[in-house]
Amino acid sequence: MKPESMTIQALRNAYQTGELTPDALMAGIRRRAKDAEDRNIWIHLLGEAEQQFYLDQLKTKSAEDCPLWGVPFAIKDNIDLAGIPTTAGCEAYKYVPEASAQVVQQLIDAGAIPVGKTNLDQFATGLNGTRSPYGACRNAVDKAFISGGSSSGSAVAVALGLASFSLGTDTAGSGRVPACFNNLIGVKPSRGLLSASGLVPACRSLDCISIFALTTDDANSVLASAEGFDSQDGYSRSNPYHNQSRQYGLRKGPLKVGVIPQAQLRFFGDDAYQRAYKATLRQLSDAGFNFVEIDYAPFDEAARLLYEGPWVSERYLAIQPLLESQPEALLPVIRQIIEPGGQPKALDLFQAQYRLTALKQRCDETLSLIDCLLLPTAGKLHTIDEMLEAPVSCNSELGYYTNFMNLLDLAAVAVPTAFTERHLPFGVTLAGPRDSDRALLSIANRIQQTLKLPLGARGSSEQTQEIPAATNPVTDTRKIDIVVCGAHLQGLPLNWQLTERGATLTERTTTAAAYRMYALAGGPPFRPGLIRDTRSGQHIEVEVWSMPSEHFGSFVSNIPAPLGIGKVELEDGRWVCSFICEPYAIAAAKDITSLGGWRAYLATLTP
Amino acid sequence: MKPESMTIQALRNAYQTGELTPDALMAGIRRRAKDAEDRNIWIHLLGEAEQQFYLDQLKTKSAEDCPLWGVPFAIKDNIDLAGIPTTAGCEAYKYVPEASAQVVQQLIDAGAIPVGKTNLDQFATGLNGTRSPYGACRNAVDKAFISGGSSSGSAVAVALGLASFSLGTDTAGSGRVPACFNNLIGVKPSRGLLSASGLVPACRSLDCISIFALTTDDANSVLASAEGFDSQDGYSRSNPYHNQSRQYGLRKGPLKVGVIPQAQLRFFGDDAYQRAYKATLRQLSDAGFNFVEIDYAPFDEAARLLYEGPWVSERYLAIQPLLESQPEALLPVIRQIIEPGGQPKALDLFQAQYRLTALKQRCDETLSLIDCLLLPTAGKLHTIDEMLEAPVSCNSELGYYTNFMNLLDLAAVAVPTAFTERHLPFGVTLAGPRDSDRALLSIANRIQQTLKLPLGARGSSEQTQEIPAATNPVTDTRKIDIVVCGAHLQGLPLNWQLTERGATLTERTTTAAAYRMYALAGGPPFRPGLIRDTRSGQHIEVEVWSMPSEHFGSFVSNIPAPLGIGKVELEDGRWVCSFICEPYAIAAAKDITSLGGWRAYLATLTP
Repeated sequence: MKPESMTIQALRNAYQTGELTPDALMAGIRRRAKDAEDRNIWIHLLGEAEQQFYLDQLKTKSAEDCPLWGVPFAIKDNIDLAGIPTTAGCEAYKYVPEASAQVVQQLIDAGAIPVGKTNLDQFATGLNGTRSPYGACRNAVDKAFISGGSSSGSAVAVALGLASFSLGTDTAGSGRVPACFNNLIGVKPSRGLLSASGLVPACRSLDCISIFALTTDDANSVLASAEGFDSQDGYSRSNPYHNQSRQYGLRKGPLKVGVIPQAQLRFFGDDAYQRAYKATLRQLSDAGFNFVEIDYAPFDEAARLLYEGPWVSERYLAIQPLLESQPEALLPVIRQIIEPGGQPKALDLFQAQYRLTALKQRCDETLSLIDCLLLPTAGKLHTIDEMLEAPVSCNSELGYYTNFMNLLDLAAVAVPTAFTERHLPFGVTLAGPRDSDRALLSIANRIQQTLKLPLGARGSSEQTQEIPAATNPVTDTRKIDIVVCGAHLQGLPLNWQLTERGATLTERTTTAAAYRMYALAGGPPFRPGLIRDTRSGQHIEVEVWSMPSEHFGSFVSNIPAPLGIGKVELEDGRWVCSFICEPYAIAAAKDITSLGGWRAYLATLTP
Repeated sequence: MKPESMTIQALRNAYQTGELTPDALMAGIRRRAKDAEDRNIWIHLLGEAEQQFYLDQLKTKSAEDCPLWGVPFAIKDNIDLAGIPTTAGCEAYKYVPEASAQVVQQLIDAGAIPVGKTNLDQFATGLNGTRSPYGACRNAVDKAFISGGSSSGSAVAVALGLASFSLGTDTAGSGRVPACFNNLIGVKPSRGLLSASGLVPACRSLDCISIFALTTDDANSVLASAEGFDSQDGYSRSNPYHNQSRQYGLRKGPLKVGVIPQAQLRFFGDDAYQRAYKATLRQLSDAGFNFVEIDYAPFDEAARLLYEGPWVSERYLAIQPLLESQPEALLPVIRQIIEPGGQPKALDLFQAQYRLTALKQRCDETLSLIDCLLLPTAGKLHTIDEMLEAPVSCNSELGYYTNFMNLLDLAAVAVPTAFTERHLPFGVTLAGPRDSDRALLSIANRIQQTLKLPLGARGSSEQTQEIPAATNPVTDTRKIDIVVCGAHLQGLPLNWQLTERGATLTERTTTAAAYRMYALAGGPPFRPGLIRDTRSGQHIEVEVWSMPSEHFGSFVSNIPAPLGIGKVELEDGRWVCSFICEPYAIAAAKDITSLGGWRAYLATLTP
């Protein structure tokens, strides 16, 4: 049986109505995998017997408790699945792990079913998908083209409907480039958000397990089940609240999105991709995206550090015993890249880290001024023949827009945005600071809803898909809007408490016609109390300031009684965080509502 | 003229009453510096003409605008002062900087007057103060003993009243060990809190400019003028609000302080120091410090990485041209330490960084459970003769308690706590996570107020000093106490909003007898409103939860009208952050005050 759609919601619906069972779905996938054998997707496709264990387990769990109940997923073959060989694309490296990687286990616990271990560029060293002794992995849309790598098989499996989602890894761009080339969402989470326990390292200080999915909603569901702190992984980091809500949503209001100036864009002769990128900007601009040009130079310099600098020593360390005992077991191109990694000195690495630190400071400043960065995920889609002819230089072209992300500790989401005239997929990558994962997904969701492109590479069966709107719209949780009406107004005595915390004035407006204002006893500083009164209230002049959420708590905690922070209704109907006042303070206070605001009242005090 | 005290407040008072002028003070210091020549404090003591520029500048500024107006300070000779040679303790390395280091300039801008450039262990490589071609720097209290290093001259200058405060640097412990041996406060700020522009690097990724002062109040004033983001220094980090208030204070309530278990303590045969440490714990325990034993093993392993691992490559990089062209220009012991730094490979450094990352995760967990760590600043105070006899092994002993701090990204404050039977100073170091600088100073202030030891090494003239209480008491700003009274109580429907943010229950208590409670309309979840009413109010049962301040903002922002967060009075008179309620909601609500709390009200709803 062939389901109409492989999205998580579609499968859950089909299970609920009884038109599908996990057993039938998995049997169908195994059959359809045979039709796609020429793509070289799998290193180990699980057989019926190997899958039975997971199908049996499912029967003991309820779909309500398991957000991924019966959802099939593919696993890049540098991530452990218990009892199945891990090769990392190299037969001589093969071992059979006793336990699954932490992330794989969490997904299985959430009800997901492993389909198989997927092909990759050997030791995750490459961005193109041809560097494998298990065969070049071919593009899901057009076999003449590369799939992108190194997470090649994982991407093609999802694009062809052989899994609902898949795990890749992303050190230099391996979770984004294949998403672009196979019309998928590709999430490169913040470093340390997903455990790396049970992952064959590439560059251990930079590696991230990544997620391929058809929609942002699916990617978000998978992320929620996959993330979490792991004390067994030194690079694991606790996830702050603003990325932990497991909600994401359509950001309201205009977006300020950084783009690369024309002179720094590179398409390496791929005019179709250049046109697709321009069309993307045009469409998103029409949809309310405000683009601002940023200086790409520090990002680009950081990107070049990755392969031109000493980080290749991490790849050497990861496979040192094999490399030193059986160097011929590696593909020549991989050996050529990794073997020099034994040479750099600590002096070189410290110097590179000094430079990177300085670059990161500049890049962080750029990012602090925008909602996210938007750049082509790749500048060119090569044919397999082109790639095999110039395997190193073509691969470098693929990393032009991707290599800096992990060095600079950014989060990134690749999202499809266009098809070329030959109907080849093109997409962009959204990037932001560490822990902006959900904020980026919310913007990607807005893009998917705006463009309404077909999903994956299965043709008509996925084309009818409605992209679901984010189920739980939230605004960017990194900032909180705060309404002020008294001594915190711009230029007044307590305004420094806002600016000291990095807050910025976003709006001058008034409350709904439902408030009274009182001049409280005491001071200086003199302070007003705002009291809701829907019968006889009026519009009161206020300012809206936007404050980094991590500093909002200390602001609130310093507010003395009888004032506090609650919610106030603005004239356009929004309810926003605002100063409120306890009732007991009003008895001794003077009603100044008729003046319309605090500044007008202060003017009456001046002789 | 010789002022009674060199504390900042004492000088400001003396200037204000007119009994002292900066010119007279500086002339007196230059005279007294001659009496202390045998200590080898200075590499370059500013002459009258060199100081005149700064004294002239002062006359254009007012003391009100300049928090350090007329306050003399000494500068370690690896930090630039415009127009005066920087040697880093090596004549062949000498250069004359055009500009002052960023931190020095900020202090001068705040009114401080440079006294001179101080002696140090060459290239800040050492913890003992004898490794200088400008002579071994001798202890301020007893010349037979080492001063500690590498910031030797800076510490002895302050202890002997030749400066009110001084700048040192601290990579491995150079800002703490000399504080211990010369009876001073030594602040090793969080990495990146003070700019490193204009500093000769030792290990550039770890170096911190440090502060020596007589009191925590002085140290805090200097820190406030010295700190600040510097976009010219890649390692500079923006200072979050909870460290930016430029206030610190006596933390209220009991303190939970981590100490090293007996088996992991080391005093290297210095019984007097061992007794002094024990006496310190006894006295602080009597003063309300609660000590809990922590596992020192991961801290110790991190400490050993510093000199046994590849970080010595940073010292090599810092002086590579000199080291490779004129190695004989270095002291033999310095050359012996730094020269091998050219050998380690990037492989070694990555492996050490992997290990450090894993250790840091364990150490951070330990620190998250305590208010701070308290450990001896040094285990032994050596004589100069002992040190010269075994210059490497004795120096290693000095770093046993200090070497891990910067590798683990901690802040630390050294504080004097005892004198041995021979009247030699002993002290402890308080340590906490990055950005706990002010919290540590507040605890150090409490120690100084409890022990009331004489300050520095000037004998009676400083002994009469009253240690000022922190002028602006604040509690630890990394946590915020929040009073809950309704659906957020433990076990009730919204309690997860507290636990999700890492909040912990600290107290079950009641409000002052000044509140009424109402069951609001709407729900579920059902919610109460707490209204202050000093005439007819009663005690209401509440819980106090302690929440990380960076997550408090998102908690507040999610609270719907008519509730908000303000201040409520507890039965013991404290005013604490709490839920409050807007007056308009009370009209449709039911008064449940007589039940004494929300749980009692819920019980009435159950059949």
